[in-house]
Amino acid sequence: MQQFDQVSVIKKANIYFDGKVTSRTVLFADGTKKTLGIMLPGEYEFGTAAAELMEMLAGEMDVLLPGEIGWRTVKAGDSFQVSANSRFKLKVNTVVDYCCSYAI
Amino acid sequence: MQQFDQVSVIKKANIYFDGKVTSRTVLFADGTKKTLGIMLPGEYEFGTAAAELMEMLAGEMDVLLPGEIGWRTVKAGDSFQVSANSRFKLKVNTVVDYCCSYAI
Repeated sequence: MQQFDQVSVIKKANIYFDGKVTSRTVLFADGTKKTLGIMLPGEYEFGTAAAELMEMLAGEMDVLLPGEIGWRTVKAGDSFQVSANSRFKLKVNTVVDYCCSYAI
Repeated sequence: MQQFDQVSVIKKANIYFDGKVTSRTVLFADGTKKTLGIMLPGEYEFGTAAAELMEMLAGEMDVLLPGEIGWRTVKAGDSFQVSANSRFKLKVNTVVDYCCSYAI
């Protein structure tokens, strides 16, 4: 799917790490939420509240998921899940464009 | 207005200047288009096709508009227009969050 239809978009961006990670929140009629975001090269750690599904739209990065020992490389077309209330680490190798879906 | 409702959002980001300028395209039922974008500190030059209205959602930058001699400082809440088929220069001082509307 190339676009989301019949949605709402919150105008103000979500801005993290001095603008190196930013996203826009997209709200769906069924009450669910996604963010469409950009990550510039660098190393980051994030924490989840709800469980998240991260879909890679462009770029490449390495991911260390909670409870895993080895880093995993993901690129455009790949996706990974992060459990609720947990932390995960990223090494962003190239500019990453992603879509994050949040469990309700 | 805090959000756009009943719109479509193109999933893939528009990425410029190695990710220092990125945006998402929002499509409206009346056929118009806007982009919601982020600019990291730096100096940029852009060219317009259609005329554009730039609204500052956050941050501060200096703008040199076509045909003007002096730079203008704009910040959150400010807006400026750029005529069609022209070029304009920006000196982005802090992370800028903006909304760009395109004439049809």
